Amino acid sequence: MTVPVNKTAGLREVDAPHSLVAHFGPDRPLAMDAGAELSPLRIAYQTYGVLNADKSNAILVCHALTGDQHVANEHPVTGKPGWWQTMVGPGRPIDTDRYFVISSNVVGGCMGTTGPASLNPSTGRPYGLELPMVTIRDMVRAQAMLIDHLGIETLFCVAGGSMGGMQVLQWAATYPERVFAAMPIATAAKHSSQNIAFHEVGRQAVMADPDWRKGRYLEEGQIPTKGLAVARMAAHITYLSDEALQNKFGRKLQDRTAPTFSFDAEFQIENYLRYQGMSFVDRFDANSYLYMTRACDYFDLAADYGGSLALAFKGAKTRFCVVSFNSDWLYPTSASRAIVHALNAGGASVSFVDIETDRGHDAFLLNVPDFIATSRGFLDAAARARGLPPARTR
Amino acid sequence: MTVPVNKTAGLREVDAPHSLVAHFGPDRPLAMDAGAELSPLRIAYQTYGVLNADKSNAILVCHALTGDQHVANEHPVTGKPGWWQTMVGPGRPIDTDRYFVISSNVVGGCMGTTGPASLNPSTGRPYGLELPMVTIRDMVRAQAMLIDHLGIETLFCVAGGSMGGMQVLQWAATYPERVFAAMPIATAAKHSSQNIAFHEVGRQAVMADPDWRKGRYLEEGQIPTKGLAVARMAAHITYLSDEALQNKFGRKLQDRTAPTFSFDAEFQIENYLRYQGMSFVDRFDANSYLYMTRACDYFDLAADYGGSLALAFKGAKTRFCVVSFNSDWLYPTSASRAIVHALNAGGASVSFVDIETDRGHDAFLLNVPDFIATSRGFLDAAARARGLPPARTR
Repeated sequence: MTVPVNKTAGLREVDAPHSLVAHFGPDRPLAMDAGAELSPLRIAYQTYGVLNADKSNAILVCHALTGDQHVANEHPVTGKPGWWQTMVGPGRPIDTDRYFVISSNVVGGCMGTTGPASLNPSTGRPYGLELPMVTIRDMVRAQAMLIDHLGIETLFCVAGGSMGGMQVLQWAATYPERVFAAMPIATAAKHSSQNIAFHEVGRQAVMADPDWRKGRYLEEGQIPTKGLAVARMAAHITYLSDEALQNKFGRKLQDRTAPTFSFDAEFQIENYLRYQGMSFVDRFDANSYLYMTRACDYFDLAADYGGSLALAFKGAKTRFCVVSFNSDWLYPTSASRAIVHALNAGGASVSFVDIETDRGHDAFLLNVPDFIATSRGFLDAAARARGLPPARTR
Repeated sequence: MTVPVNKTAGLREVDAPHSLVAHFGPDRPLAMDAGAELSPLRIAYQTYGVLNADKSNAILVCHALTGDQHVANEHPVTGKPGWWQTMVGPGRPIDTDRYFVISSNVVGGCMGTTGPASLNPSTGRPYGLELPMVTIRDMVRAQAMLIDHLGIETLFCVAGGSMGGMQVLQWAATYPERVFAAMPIATAAKHSSQNIAFHEVGRQAVMADPDWRKGRYLEEGQIPTKGLAVARMAAHITYLSDEALQNKFGRKLQDRTAPTFSFDAEFQIENYLRYQGMSFVDRFDANSYLYMTRACDYFDLAADYGGSLALAFKGAKTRFCVVSFNSDWLYPTSASRAIVHALNAGGASVSFVDIETDRGHDAFLLNVPDFIATSRGFLDAAARARGLPPARTR
């Protein structure tokens, strides 16, 4: 599933159990928005497909809050299919027969890239909350280091949903000349007050768990599973639309026909949420969850451009396809519309599609035909403009 | 603030430190939906104004999830004004110069009415989760016992918002001949899947706190403050609209001009939510919170009438005023519209007003002029129809 890449002086590259890992030594620290330098830095990543000779067919896929680099392969922890198998693979819109697809675990993550569970070289124990705060821009800077390392100058496309879409926007703003096309999906150019509020509830749930141990749980042999599960449950509600919950679960009881009048999981929705909470803690690090939510909360792209989002994209030659879902109330259509207005004001080339679906925010992860077709159409057109050969007939 | 009331055989009535209390002995148990009988039963209540000679001017105010009987007097625990002082008082729509206003703490509550913190006579220790599950109908049955006790046959009006509105609907369905007018405000005839989901997050947050001690915290000298605070934070977000949060807090930082890149309350919205969580635990019992949320989750008025909400109100002579707020996403306008459709189908007299405001669900607690005016207009007209003398000129 991976292709050989050039080794660069100062970098070591080793196979991780489940991913490729790029190592950046003391000569290549990551400069972070919080003022610190992170070193050494590991970036765990997956690639799919083959990089063409002129390196013009690379697509970077950016993952969401609790996603990772396992976009289109079986997940090494859960055994489930890759999280974007609807979009990435042979014959899919992000066609691995045609494009060279790269996806890396973000800085602060917990799937092989340096994060709060990594050893802090200055203390010899896990960073915990000693890891400097991570921003979306830090994630993107680290991705740019990886892209440099892979010897790629310009990405054909950067694509991602939710927190992944924030990275897409940041890429387009910070490295406009390195992004030929961009797909920010189900995202926002800044976190709203309500977005921050939900994240804060999740953080407080984690930190309220005595097993969190002020972030030192790994050394103390504990895991704040209960707090993290509650955080996940709260967040999960925001990923689904009211209508989808009503259609799927409604008020149906769990394994019974009459209520038991107890505090057990009486309704199916309760059982579902509890399962979402419990299964999450098996695959995700609690401190990483704190860092990821904070990174989103700090995101406000316009703030770096004097408050003008249009300035962030001024003169951009990148071709944009902005996608929203009409039942997404986490990053609603209005947030995508604000991005589109700024792109228009900045003179960029932009398509905007608001997909009608009842699936809510999670729609970007699902097989929503209009979304798949939109993505395919945009990428095919961008590929022609980029001079890439047409897709194989399948 | 209270008026003398008749004593009835089999009841004892004593002053509680902060409220009147009606005691119902072994001869008057409360029959509960869960199948149990609750006895003895205490109901703590407040009254305002004077009951007229023909007992035709009584208004029952029903409180919401974390409300109580202190509608229009200083709260004995927090020292804050009554929770509905915008609506209840001299010259207010629920005019205490004109009406006799009754408000009681619901069964399962924690302000003097029998609830999970009350002593279980069969064990001599607090009920905890041994209290039978409480439903909205149980609350209303208990209120009817109180109204009987006060010697009132027909209520001029039953009014309440949110969970209070559910009680209003239940009153109108169960005791149609005892309700001359009804104001269900910012409510729903059943809890949606999303409503249940948010409540379940809150319950799991409480129960995840090791200080909850499986509900036995009172005997063990603990209070699950952290879990209850997280529950309140999550719930509080649902009480406010996205727009109101954005207008009030936006992305403003707390006491600083640049981010500190820490997990402190960096944004004002975080500080606000933490305060809401912390102040709540000083005034509310964690187990009561579990019972109150469960009561709402079980609420599905149509289910008791073969799935037809119209049947619940068939032939009702009660005059209804249904009020929703267009930015309320907890019990949205569509939920009120469903009530109105059912009332129309049932042949009831109904006014419906959807108030335009950005204040979200909490609008029913606030001084929203259109809401106050609507309430005044409805009650004045109902009072004329009831033959009550006009309001004093103030």
